[in-house]
Amino acid sequence: MNNFEWHNPVRLVFGKGTISRLGQLIPPHVKLMINWGGGSVKKNGVWEQVVTALAGRKFIDFGGIEANPQYSTLMRAVGIARKEKIGFLLSVGGGSVLDGTKFIAAALEYSGADPWDILEKGERVEKAVPLGSVLTLPATGSEMNGNAVISRQENRQKLAFGSEKVMPLFSILDPMTTYSLSPRQTANGVVDTMVHVFEQYLTKDVANPLNERIAEAVLKTTIENGKKIFLEPENYEIRSNLMWSATMALNGLIGVNAAQDWTSHGIGHELTALYGLDHGQSLAIVSPNVMRYKKEQKKRMLVKYARNVWNIQGSDEDAVAMAGIDSTVGFWNSLGVKTRLSDYGIGEADFGFIADRLGGNGAKIGENRDIGRDDIASILRMSL
Amino acid sequence: MNNFEWHNPVRLVFGKGTISRLGQLIPPHVKLMINWGGGSVKKNGVWEQVVTALAGRKFIDFGGIEANPQYSTLMRAVGIARKEKIGFLLSVGGGSVLDGTKFIAAALEYSGADPWDILEKGERVEKAVPLGSVLTLPATGSEMNGNAVISRQENRQKLAFGSEKVMPLFSILDPMTTYSLSPRQTANGVVDTMVHVFEQYLTKDVANPLNERIAEAVLKTTIENGKKIFLEPENYEIRSNLMWSATMALNGLIGVNAAQDWTSHGIGHELTALYGLDHGQSLAIVSPNVMRYKKEQKKRMLVKYARNVWNIQGSDEDAVAMAGIDSTVGFWNSLGVKTRLSDYGIGEADFGFIADRLGGNGAKIGENRDIGRDDIASILRMSL
Repeated sequence: MNNFEWHNPVRLVFGKGTISRLGQLIPPHVKLMINWGGGSVKKNGVWEQVVTALAGRKFIDFGGIEANPQYSTLMRAVGIARKEKIGFLLSVGGGSVLDGTKFIAAALEYSGADPWDILEKGERVEKAVPLGSVLTLPATGSEMNGNAVISRQENRQKLAFGSEKVMPLFSILDPMTTYSLSPRQTANGVVDTMVHVFEQYLTKDVANPLNERIAEAVLKTTIENGKKIFLEPENYEIRSNLMWSATMALNGLIGVNAAQDWTSHGIGHELTALYGLDHGQSLAIVSPNVMRYKKEQKKRMLVKYARNVWNIQGSDEDAVAMAGIDSTVGFWNSLGVKTRLSDYGIGEADFGFIADRLGGNGAKIGENRDIGRDDIASILRMSL
Repeated sequence: MNNFEWHNPVRLVFGKGTISRLGQLIPPHVKLMINWGGGSVKKNGVWEQVVTALAGRKFIDFGGIEANPQYSTLMRAVGIARKEKIGFLLSVGGGSVLDGTKFIAAALEYSGADPWDILEKGERVEKAVPLGSVLTLPATGSEMNGNAVISRQENRQKLAFGSEKVMPLFSILDPMTTYSLSPRQTANGVVDTMVHVFEQYLTKDVANPLNERIAEAVLKTTIENGKKIFLEPENYEIRSNLMWSATMALNGLIGVNAAQDWTSHGIGHELTALYGLDHGQSLAIVSPNVMRYKKEQKKRMLVKYARNVWNIQGSDEDAVAMAGIDSTVGFWNSLGVKTRLSDYGIGEADFGFIADRLGGNGAKIGENRDIGRDDIASILRMSL
């Protein structure tokens, strides 16, 4: 088994009515800023629960953090938070609001000239304002990790950073807050959860069979409940299972010593940056084709996935592996998620641009650093 | 899904050569005490690795913490640590040394009159000296939780306490340190790991299928590797899998919202306190009979266990459940672990004493608080 280190100090508070715990969880005597997104939390009762739980405690709030949170928006929040001497940031919303909050937290304490360098140059985050979250959309896993993805529209860029310093002090997950999600948001969350598992699980052998099995447990639970949620969008058990699975997919556990292959996310982020596809939509297009393109290299795990998650029988490993991929695509289609670029009217025009961006100047991505410019273009063509 | 809170800030450092990380992990500028047990760490090279990693840093050491760590021994350590103004405790050894270290850490900061009250009266631990661990025996899960079990020979007592305050700051797990374990220690560790899972998994439905599957993943991996380890006691992969599984069995994850039924541990602790049975030995005797005695109540999970872990086929749920229990007993016997009291020459003499101790004055144990004096006596008779 490959060596690893695992450290995840996030306090996860999960269940019905848990927003009422906020008052105890936020440190006293610090100035509080609450971040939110497009306004759904103000319509579905979440905001009221938050304000009630704070029991008269003062705060300022910053709304309008977008899906795919924008650097310019976040820098406005940084300006306000700095002026107000904010000592704690609370994210109320989905993964985008939380990712944005993580960036604000890091930027506020950043000692370099330009916080964008945290994203573009991978500058290390040495310090951050403490933060917490009330999560309302299960998908990104951001609630229990130190990762964030930030976009910059004017550059058509979508870039990630990660640091233990921006792990939430706590995350409150009340599955009831997810009842009002649209079918599209719910389906995207299912796809995102599954692809998070794939990026860690469908990789080379690090001799960690327990983690392979835990990854399969997350996939099976997500699929089982993803199949049911559209019939019963207000079923607490189904919503709970989807929410807990999304957290477990990306809280570091199943990836402790995995090889990790974030190719689908890399290409998917470019598609979002260029065409505004939802994150889940972009992954549903790219991920099956990364599997197909890398079928030989990933065969050991594609076969395990097909057999253990989809119960596919047979001794022809190629056929089994392909059937697992097809089952995945079929499942996503059944949730209403499209799996081809052409479904969105996207053609080859920007393939060269995307391939250059990720694989220009000889850069290689993937678990073996062997996916270059031409491979990326091929994967995109397969996705048409 | 039942509500839960999960918070586990232990930094787990896993793998070959990781003891060398000690110097970075122990906080600087505090007086250090290193606790150890019967002396095996001084023979198998672990102590040398620890001293080398500390690179000349001064420490005092306290050896001789027993398997089933004794209150009197630990209170001697408390006296020394207090006099020396110790600011950090490092446990080097197995779960007993670590449990003892946790108690020392709590007792040093205890403001009440008698630290024994933490165990006997369940007095809350408000503060503790920080601690870390180098673990050399996978079994108890103590390396990634806030639990400890302490014995007091003169009272024939073995009692547990738990607190977030005594979670290790870090735990270093190098599977190579487990190569020198005896077959008996290794087999006991396998039993202990499995019964930790049982106490959480074989309980009533809390609608958390993901955690049920993760529990099964831990059981399958433990059994698979437990079957192989005696043929290859120095196989790194097998040792790693057993070590990682033991940690995952009791780091809180699979029990986040489980009903929890610690009946086997309760009765097992009494057997250890009275007869000096190893912890694993006591569990191997009691646990199958708790399953048999509570078969109707636990049938849902006994059937899942038999089918998903042991691949037992058939539609007769009673037969399937019993076959799962029999497979467990057969597996433990194959590891050389006995599963009857009579195998150790233990008869009925003390059954009344044990039953009174756990079920006297109408006390009830078990997930449903329905296991009383007579039930405990019945389980013991079934274990003869």
